[in-house]
Amino acid sequence: MSETERGSFTLPGESGYEELTLQLAKRWGADMIRDSDGTVLSDELINAGYGIYSTICLIRDHNQWANAHPEQLQQTFLTTEPRSATVESLEISLLEDFYREQFRINESPESMKYWQVFDRTSNIEISRDSWNYDPLTQTVTIRDIVPFHQYTVNFLAYRIWEEISMYNHLTNHWEKEHLMPLDPRHKETRDYLYNWLKNWCEEHPATTVVRFTSLFYNFVWMWGSSERKRNLFSDWGSYDFTVSPAALKEFEEEYGYGLVSEDFINQGKFHVTHMPPGRRQLDYMEFINRFVVDYGKQLVELVHSYGKQACVFYDDSWIGLEPYHSRFREFGFDGLIKCVFSGYEARLCAGVPVKTHELRLHPYLFPVGLNGTPTFAPGGNPTKDALEYWNRVRRALLRQKIDRIGLGGYLHLTADYPDFCSCIEKIADEFRTFKKLHEAGEVYTLPIKTAVVHAWGKLRSWTLSGHFHETHMHDLIHINEALSGLPLQVEFISFEDIKNGALNHVDVLINAGAYGTAWSGGGAWKEDEIVDETARFVHNGGVFLGVNEPSATDGYQTFFRLSQVLGIDEDTGARVCHGRMEYEIETIPGLIPKGVRINGKKGLFLTDQETSVLAEENNVPSITYHPFGMGAGIYLSSFSFNNINTRMLLNLILYSRNRNLDQNYLTDNPETECAWYPDCRTLVIVNNSKLPQTASVKTEYSVVKTVLAPYETIIKVM
Amino acid sequence: MSETERGSFTLPGESGYEELTLQLAKRWGADMIRDSDGTVLSDELINAGYGIYSTICLIRDHNQWANAHPEQLQQTFLTTEPRSATVESLEISLLEDFYREQFRINESPESMKYWQVFDRTSNIEISRDSWNYDPLTQTVTIRDIVPFHQYTVNFLAYRIWEEISMYNHLTNHWEKEHLMPLDPRHKETRDYLYNWLKNWCEEHPATTVVRFTSLFYNFVWMWGSSERKRNLFSDWGSYDFTVSPAALKEFEEEYGYGLVSEDFINQGKFHVTHMPPGRRQLDYMEFINRFVVDYGKQLVELVHSYGKQACVFYDDSWIGLEPYHSRFREFGFDGLIKCVFSGYEARLCAGVPVKTHELRLHPYLFPVGLNGTPTFAPGGNPTKDALEYWNRVRRALLRQKIDRIGLGGYLHLTADYPDFCSCIEKIADEFRTFKKLHEAGEVYTLPIKTAVVHAWGKLRSWTLSGHFHETHMHDLIHINEALSGLPLQVEFISFEDIKNGALNHVDVLINAGAYGTAWSGGGAWKEDEIVDETARFVHNGGVFLGVNEPSATDGYQTFFRLSQVLGIDEDTGARVCHGRMEYEIETIPGLIPKGVRINGKKGLFLTDQETSVLAEENNVPSITYHPFGMGAGIYLSSFSFNNINTRMLLNLILYSRNRNLDQNYLTDNPETECAWYPDCRTLVIVNNSKLPQTASVKTEYSVVKTVLAPYETIIKVM
Repeated sequence: MSETERGSFTLPGESGYEELTLQLAKRWGADMIRDSDGTVLSDELINAGYGIYSTICLIRDHNQWANAHPEQLQQTFLTTEPRSATVESLEISLLEDFYREQFRINESPESMKYWQVFDRTSNIEISRDSWNYDPLTQTVTIRDIVPFHQYTVNFLAYRIWEEISMYNHLTNHWEKEHLMPLDPRHKETRDYLYNWLKNWCEEHPATTVVRFTSLFYNFVWMWGSSERKRNLFSDWGSYDFTVSPAALKEFEEEYGYGLVSEDFINQGKFHVTHMPPGRRQLDYMEFINRFVVDYGKQLVELVHSYGKQACVFYDDSWIGLEPYHSRFREFGFDGLIKCVFSGYEARLCAGVPVKTHELRLHPYLFPVGLNGTPTFAPGGNPTKDALEYWNRVRRALLRQKIDRIGLGGYLHLTADYPDFCSCIEKIADEFRTFKKLHEAGEVYTLPIKTAVVHAWGKLRSWTLSGHFHETHMHDLIHINEALSGLPLQVEFISFEDIKNGALNHVDVLINAGAYGTAWSGGGAWKEDEIVDETARFVHNGGVFLGVNEPSATDGYQTFFRLSQVLGIDEDTGARVCHGRMEYEIETIPGLIPKGVRINGKKGLFLTDQETSVLAEENNVPSITYHPFGMGAGIYLSSFSFNNINTRMLLNLILYSRNRNLDQNYLTDNPETECAWYPDCRTLVIVNNSKLPQTASVKTEYSVVKTVLAPYETIIKVM
Repeated sequence: MSETERGSFTLPGESGYEELTLQLAKRWGADMIRDSDGTVLSDELINAGYGIYSTICLIRDHNQWANAHPEQLQQTFLTTEPRSATVESLEISLLEDFYREQFRINESPESMKYWQVFDRTSNIEISRDSWNYDPLTQTVTIRDIVPFHQYTVNFLAYRIWEEISMYNHLTNHWEKEHLMPLDPRHKETRDYLYNWLKNWCEEHPATTVVRFTSLFYNFVWMWGSSERKRNLFSDWGSYDFTVSPAALKEFEEEYGYGLVSEDFINQGKFHVTHMPPGRRQLDYMEFINRFVVDYGKQLVELVHSYGKQACVFYDDSWIGLEPYHSRFREFGFDGLIKCVFSGYEARLCAGVPVKTHELRLHPYLFPVGLNGTPTFAPGGNPTKDALEYWNRVRRALLRQKIDRIGLGGYLHLTADYPDFCSCIEKIADEFRTFKKLHEAGEVYTLPIKTAVVHAWGKLRSWTLSGHFHETHMHDLIHINEALSGLPLQVEFISFEDIKNGALNHVDVLINAGAYGTAWSGGGAWKEDEIVDETARFVHNGGVFLGVNEPSATDGYQTFFRLSQVLGIDEDTGARVCHGRMEYEIETIPGLIPKGVRINGKKGLFLTDQETSVLAEENNVPSITYHPFGMGAGIYLSSFSFNNINTRMLLNLILYSRNRNLDQNYLTDNPETECAWYPDCRTLVIVNNSKLPQTASVKTEYSVVKTVLAPYETIIKVM
């Protein structure tokens, strides 16, 4: 590969390892050198002729300011675990359940205005006359309680240890002063941080790219006092850590109604991204997003004014960034960096309206990985990790252009892993080849417009809430991961979008998830308009592909509101004595590849004689196909991402669109996939498995037959 | 065994097989000879010196009367399957979904008053102005429909083929005129049937016992037009087949409010016994029960006036009989006969306030069994069947006295099965021994008062809705079956009973079932009074034993309303991002027998550090124990009846009541059980398994050690 085809690679440099840094920079084709959390770049590295990429986490590492302005620390609402008593009064120690190094009670009058005490048994708030707070003991005493009823206290607390450094301290034994997160909601702090960044820019002339890690507010991550339950609540998309009396006051002024602590606490459940959001929650998210954009824009402009680019890392303190919000362009970011384990994360990054889309590959150059398992440490196998992650990401890169890749962490750890260094060299070269193919012209994509509908719509395109391993219990992340590498056009829409005619330009609508979740849709399916519009869409030729409990809601004759489209429904208990329609498994050659694994569900039953059962589990249909008007309903009782199931998904979509299963530019082996770049007449075939595979691809020129080594990429110019 | 110890056995005689009948009568120790559905007794049998037991199904076999009074046939509400259209009107053929030999539309004005048409998509009733019925085509046409909305028609139909004979016709190929069921709701029919029975009594002087099979109304059993879905709906406890315009009119006069068809149809779900009943449903059941008792009492008095006994068979047309209703004694029945597959059915029979409790054992003397599998036919093994059923029933007979056993069907079928005849001989002798032991004095029972609470309370003592194989998907039937042979005091209570102080005389309260079902309790758990009272009961020393989703209801902070008692709760989706408390499995010697199998559940999490996890499945707790005040909460994620699990249930109860696990009068091998009759110092040890077992039992006299053959019963006088 010629020298000019290199670049597009961000290398984590490390002082004290200058030779290694420059050697790997050359080998991996780096054009940028970055620092990482815990590393710095020496002058030698800064002056080595590479672009310099500096990471900044703006809101931490200002403890002097924080100590001087303790009321301007970030906050969150907390609630105590339910407590009961057999006597007339109950004393609740507010911090008993919490990790005391993370929280400090906000006892100010503006804070206490928001505290609430609930009888959770009767589901009623306790009048303020019936409880009082003692700052000495940090307890709330509730009078005149009902014996055995459970009570909780919602209160407001400052966060006194920025969560990412707390995590690194506790997991990776970083010894460092506890960094406190500042809240730019306060003008003083906002100005302070602005000026700090201004100084920083002046003092770092060599930096070409400022990489924000990330903005101001971390996703929620509450820690508990018990070692048996250190993690109390963590949701990658929840806005709990943005709250403060100041923010709530501004919200009330802007929206004309006030929020209470219970709007956040929600019976101790908080608001996980996996459940449908309510109006108040969405209002609050909008409110915060606007604030983050407004202040973020000023910072980006400041960075630009120093002739530097401004990029943003999409993780950690990303709350309010919302790259799929229409307001995102206002930031003016030059690029977005996404760390990736999976294909859908690459697609998420690729779809954001910025100039430069960059992936930070895994593994992170760290002794241990996210789950505490060894990486660059005895017992670890970083080459295997890198290959497996690359295998997940690669198929997405064949579908959509990414501009840069890179790594993060301590470069010196790679010294003992020469295989890893070779592997990254190969990955970097492959990546640059894919990028070049995309630059030459669009990849061939089937003319099938696929839309995933869920409660969040476009705002949560591709992702549910964080990484795959955090959300694997939801069918939709598996569907998204499958879609990330399929030759389909994909978009994410909301139920509101359906009412606004979104289905007019859709061929296949996917709804995947358990009853009541944001992904299935929950209460949205109570709206007849959505049900009618979807039925009409299918009747006129569209396809509705439902997974698990699609369109499910309670209170109606059918549990799946679109059972007439799907030809199948689920009994939730009231139909246990109703007969089930008998069926035989229908076999359509090539449709369901050998090795497909679908987890069955109980209670499913056919609602129409015309429903074809394509597979079953424990004598219950697991894959069905039902013609409806000119279109069809497809049902899968679950979906897990793997190579075979992914091909089945594509096959079902092809079949429902009346297309051949063995058409051009598809491989004949589900363990493999291919992409066709017509403008440079290049066919890329990839082996997505860890075993050798053969693949045959029909093209308009000839049939390409090939043998692929494990995880191999083969590129053929036709 | 001496001649005097024989008797208590009802033998099905058969004309043409007089020798066989008398020979087996002697061998099995019969004192009564009965006819069966499809058999008659010859004069030789009638005059052989045995008591004569005649089966009567009063409401069928009067086709001449039925044809003359077609408006006095029994009826039911039906509803069409949901249908939609893309145009402005929709025509629905009423009988399209139904087995036409079972139903005839009731087109009378009094009937049509009750018809209702629903838009099931919008969940609204369609005004009568917008639809009309055409008797010629038997269709309803609905005007001005919303395209793609689903519509159904509720209508009233006569039942023109009594379901049990229909079943026998279709399953056992009985060729016979279709018998039509008469509705005694009509005075004319009531008088006709009364006189018919009077005549019958006069014409059958030899009959000593009239055995009603059963009363007037069959449990619901709707058949469909499609061979792929012949069974539309069947529930052993549902009152659908009692309805008529006449009944509804009387109901309205009595209760001051009218019922509509939708009260029965319930969105096509009807009202399965497994779901909590509503007020209107309970009112209607009371109304029917009162009618059945009033008329039934007259018939019993009539039978008595001829010097005959009146017994009733508790199956088929049993609706309204309700042997656990306080009104049941008013019938004046001399005995109740229950067909049994399981131990809980024997306990159900034993607990009814009649003089004679009789079990009709299985297998029925028929070529095929209930599920169409061969019995007395090639491929069948009636001896094995008899032994397995006896094994299930026997342990219940050790706990509670039953007065008689018997068989039913075609006796001649046994001629080719000498093993079967020996087996029944042995069973009959064993049965009489148990009966004698009970007559000598009470069996030793642990002083532990156990109550099962569910929405039906005492009315559905022991049974859920029919046989074990019909209800096996519910945890509670497994619990009931386990309890049926355990040395505990058992009662069944309702949530209303809890409010009325029922827990004051209870030691262990069991709540077992899935969320929303009658068995778990559904909405009853929204009543704070019930939650409070149960928590107080446990705090004061009681035990709450919950299975699957005990005390579960929606809308509260916790899903299990008694999570504070159980120390465990279930996430239904909103807590998927919440941390789970870590735990280690606690081992308490002897508590959980080796071989226990509990199906795990997803989403369970500990709510208290004090919760002991005794077992887990897939890294989720499956058996937990939680001290609460002076009592405890026990949780099982599921319960399946088998010998080992049954002993585990007993162990958990003993442990929670602070009793030794190896106390007197318990075997040391969970595959075996024993019963102790102190008044005759007799110990009965049974092997509940099909393998040889050893057992050791500590008694106040000595330790009894024994070896038992498969299914063996050993009787030791101490």
